[in-house]
Amino acid sequence: MWETDKTIDKAAQQMLKITAADGVATVWDRYEAQQPQCGFGSLGICCRNCLQGPCRINPFGEPKRGVCGADADTIVARNLLRSLAGGTAAHVDHAYEAVEALEKIATGDIDYVIKDENKLIATARQVGIETDGKDSKGVAKEVAQKALETLSGHEGEMGWLSAWAPKERVDVWRQLGVIPRGADREIREAMHQTSMGVDADPTNLLLAGVKQGLVDGYAGLKLATDIQDIIFGMPQPVKSEANLGVLNAEYVNVVVHGHVPLLSEKVLEWCRKLEDEAKAAGARGINVAGICCTGNEVLMRQGVPPATNFLGQELALATGAVDLMVVDVQCILPSVTNVAQCYHGDIVTTMPIAKVPGADHIPFSLEEADQQAEKIVRQSIESYKKRGSTPVHIPDERALIFAGFSVEAIIGALSKVNAEDPLKPLVDNIKAGNILGAVATVGCNNVKVKQDMMHVELVKELIANNVLVIATGCSAHALGKAGLLHPDATNNLAGNGLKAVLTAVGEAAGLGGPLPPVLHMGSCVDNSRIGDLLTALAGYMGVNIKDLPVAASAPEPQHEKALSIGTWAVALGVFTHLGLPPHILGSKAVTGTLTDKVEDLLGGKFYVESDPAKAAAGIIRHIKDKRHALGL
Amino acid sequence: MWETDKTIDKAAQQMLKITAADGVATVWDRYEAQQPQCGFGSLGICCRNCLQGPCRINPFGEPKRGVCGADADTIVARNLLRSLAGGTAAHVDHAYEAVEALEKIATGDIDYVIKDENKLIATARQVGIETDGKDSKGVAKEVAQKALETLSGHEGEMGWLSAWAPKERVDVWRQLGVIPRGADREIREAMHQTSMGVDADPTNLLLAGVKQGLVDGYAGLKLATDIQDIIFGMPQPVKSEANLGVLNAEYVNVVVHGHVPLLSEKVLEWCRKLEDEAKAAGARGINVAGICCTGNEVLMRQGVPPATNFLGQELALATGAVDLMVVDVQCILPSVTNVAQCYHGDIVTTMPIAKVPGADHIPFSLEEADQQAEKIVRQSIESYKKRGSTPVHIPDERALIFAGFSVEAIIGALSKVNAEDPLKPLVDNIKAGNILGAVATVGCNNVKVKQDMMHVELVKELIANNVLVIATGCSAHALGKAGLLHPDATNNLAGNGLKAVLTAVGEAAGLGGPLPPVLHMGSCVDNSRIGDLLTALAGYMGVNIKDLPVAASAPEPQHEKALSIGTWAVALGVFTHLGLPPHILGSKAVTGTLTDKVEDLLGGKFYVESDPAKAAAGIIRHIKDKRHALGL
Repeated sequence: MWETDKTIDKAAQQMLKITAADGVATVWDRYEAQQPQCGFGSLGICCRNCLQGPCRINPFGEPKRGVCGADADTIVARNLLRSLAGGTAAHVDHAYEAVEALEKIATGDIDYVIKDENKLIATARQVGIETDGKDSKGVAKEVAQKALETLSGHEGEMGWLSAWAPKERVDVWRQLGVIPRGADREIREAMHQTSMGVDADPTNLLLAGVKQGLVDGYAGLKLATDIQDIIFGMPQPVKSEANLGVLNAEYVNVVVHGHVPLLSEKVLEWCRKLEDEAKAAGARGINVAGICCTGNEVLMRQGVPPATNFLGQELALATGAVDLMVVDVQCILPSVTNVAQCYHGDIVTTMPIAKVPGADHIPFSLEEADQQAEKIVRQSIESYKKRGSTPVHIPDERALIFAGFSVEAIIGALSKVNAEDPLKPLVDNIKAGNILGAVATVGCNNVKVKQDMMHVELVKELIANNVLVIATGCSAHALGKAGLLHPDATNNLAGNGLKAVLTAVGEAAGLGGPLPPVLHMGSCVDNSRIGDLLTALAGYMGVNIKDLPVAASAPEPQHEKALSIGTWAVALGVFTHLGLPPHILGSKAVTGTLTDKVEDLLGGKFYVESDPAKAAAGIIRHIKDKRHALGL
Repeated sequence: MWETDKTIDKAAQQMLKITAADGVATVWDRYEAQQPQCGFGSLGICCRNCLQGPCRINPFGEPKRGVCGADADTIVARNLLRSLAGGTAAHVDHAYEAVEALEKIATGDIDYVIKDENKLIATARQVGIETDGKDSKGVAKEVAQKALETLSGHEGEMGWLSAWAPKERVDVWRQLGVIPRGADREIREAMHQTSMGVDADPTNLLLAGVKQGLVDGYAGLKLATDIQDIIFGMPQPVKSEANLGVLNAEYVNVVVHGHVPLLSEKVLEWCRKLEDEAKAAGARGINVAGICCTGNEVLMRQGVPPATNFLGQELALATGAVDLMVVDVQCILPSVTNVAQCYHGDIVTTMPIAKVPGADHIPFSLEEADQQAEKIVRQSIESYKKRGSTPVHIPDERALIFAGFSVEAIIGALSKVNAEDPLKPLVDNIKAGNILGAVATVGCNNVKVKQDMMHVELVKELIANNVLVIATGCSAHALGKAGLLHPDATNNLAGNGLKAVLTAVGEAAGLGGPLPPVLHMGSCVDNSRIGDLLTALAGYMGVNIKDLPVAASAPEPQHEKALSIGTWAVALGVFTHLGLPPHILGSKAVTGTLTDKVEDLLGGKFYVESDPAKAAAGIIRHIKDKRHALGL
């Protein structure tokens, strides 16, 4: 495979030539070495949930049942539910870290502060907390308490969901019996439900999957985002640059990688504080860059430039310019230590549940976050000193980007057009057809797809057809690197209707030009912002989310989190495209339910299409159908 | 395969001839159809945790790493941790059901009562609740509250563990950093930890596995048993019969199957209440029999005869005499509906997370348990009426058994020998060598082993060598069917030393003969009773559990629960035999740690041996080593 078959990212292509020349294995090499991948596993018809197995179902004949008697439908549904529980657990754990921090801020035990008091008050009121006459620490304590009930309450309907989900949705979910109780109970229950000899009913298992999606949406994404906004502040539009060219050979380069901003915000603070020490060591300063969603978090709030997305993490190290990569949780390739050994740079793990052989471990705690961040930054300076004669190859690739589009920021921009009724210009333009609809592109890279290709090709097609795109996660990284988070893309690639609207809003907001055609809304947990925007739009238009001319897409899904987020989107009533199928094709019943029948129950469904032009056509067809149904 | 190669149980052998003649597939047929089973899955070196996979490691060469870079050690450890989380979740869910019932008893919302006030008070005091001047409902409310903290507390050390675990153990676990917080947090965390790009460190993953074992032991087994004793009463020695011969063609036969006694106790009550209706329908009455651990629960407290264990569940239906099988959770073969359709009998599922296509679903709730139990029993009478000309083949096989040996019951029997100091006769006889040591045999059947063979052969060898055996779960079923839960087995099979002790105790307790050589301590969650007994023995002898001449064995492990229970046993410091290896052999590091190195850390380790004579020899060698170390 040529590097141009592996990625459309020119910086990545350059780096792949270097790793190939150096004989250093990357994720693409390991993918090739894994061929052919197991057909049973790919189809989801392999079960290892007890010691009588492993069992596998023959899609063409016998055996049709595993040792226990489970058939393909049961096995596929059971495996999917476990995957959804894995993705959901990741986000709920993330949310818990934020809630714990808020709780400790309230008691004054840690050196973090509440940066957005307005969000704190708004959140408190929405979840039913009286705020009058209370100071912010008092309110924070009660918000944290409510959040903990959402995480670990055993009975009743999940508080965070009840507070935020549209009433119409709550009714639908209640009817289906899928409203979760506390997050932890539901995750525990899913693990029990999928163990040997418990649930054999594929429909029941899929409904439990919907419940996991709702847990992810409200006790994972939404809760994490709300609390992070309170602690770290509400993102506002910010300019930055994306791609490996943001690394700078003359600086100490620190890369923050992972998903949770609790440590990376502190690292950033200490990089600024220890600038002089870096200079004393011969560097021009300390340069921080981000990878994956930790990168998105510090981009959204601090303008830190994103170096690359999931598939590029090894390539960043191969530049030889990364003096230290500090990681927290999720999407960390275990291979980073091998690559760093071949080039240069320390890998520092920080979380008790995420260690990597060969990495240094500096345990993170809320109580001693400053000391730990200081230690990490000092280590990066030491590492810089040892860079010595390591060859440094930084591709000269970086794209200007705009990010920071929280719902509040979007409404802020729209209010420059209509201060009284900010959603009106947006909705009027949707109704008039200048904006055909909106699509959220989210999720990962997956080595099975040429890196960024699906994200970029799909989005180019959408914006050319006047579809407004909002993006998060590695999708936003991909689109940023490809120049689509910049106003020039509006001028060069957007359809005329969309261009006119974005120009009008951008000029009213004082940008002197259009908004970008893709609005970067943040990290993967920030997908909750997309949910908030849809809820606001549907409310404004007096329709349900499922009736809006919108869709979601994970063009290159990889992580279990992508599946649980996608399930939440479908549960919201959103038509949800996946650029690759999950491991479900071994069950026609499960596949048929998720891509067709579920629409009758929830209004949303999954749509799997690996060709970007066809996927765009399918999404646009859906949007047009929804417009038609609305009489537009 | 002949039926004598499938099972040593003569009743099962007879039934297998019938199912073979009728062309009805059983678990053995499905096992044969699954051959050859996947080597990658068997070795644990297959990973499906993200959509870049499935990946598999070649044990003989390349590839040595999955797409993400995880090697065999990481993959095996990650898969094992997920399995342990599955087993742990099953037991914690079970415990939660019991706690919820106690909570509702306290508020008077349900028709259950507190049967054992002494246990309630003892439990309350041990977990630090002041009981003076409080009525039992008040105490129950506080106990339930404490239990809920153990289930869902996010911080600090797990309360149920702190209250019950030996101090020496707590120190060891604290040093290793494996003391769990709330159960649900740890299960959620394990799922996160095993998702793509989080933990790549096999040692860290295995330590997280130890944590799951402790969650299972204290928030699963111990908590479930304590609360069930409070609600349903403390088991006391009881006589019954075991094997399919306990079914009776002239009665309405109701089989209770699964694990949780909340419903089965009510079903039993209603079987007694509706006896006359059964007679009016032409039956001689209603006969209740049990399968798996629900069977053990109602045997221990009500003397209900166990019909068979895990591998026999389809064969019970093939008798044509089971009019209704009511199931709750865990170890229910999805095939039961197929078998019932071929013969006779209704399958009724009752739990929201455990449905089976083709079964009737009568949803169980604590609030309406009586109505639901009544409905189920009435349906069994209706089903009896429809039995018509169905051929009934009930093997004339049943063995007399004694069960009900709670720790309290054992100490009760011993106190007849020495009222002041009941443990003294037991410990004196261990010291004198009349009792060489004690072994707990627990766990499942597994179709890979001739049914019951490992349980029975191993135990015969042990008791002949003067090792006292205590048993739970499907192991107790197996030993019961084989006659080993009866005093005759003491006379015929036990070594002279053991026989003399059991005879002395039995006669002092007024049995007119010896105790059985195997004491049936209950269901799988009743393994906590074994932990209690070991704790009491070690305390009495002034040594640590890891120094006792004891061992545990799961001779035919099948369920993920067996792995989490076994991990708890190892964490307690117990030498733990498995008759089959878990899916870990693909990692020498993981296998070596669990079967060797872990002993230095925890005092216990796993020992895998599939030959019963060799396993007995290995266990006896271990016991002798421990005796030697104690100077005995």
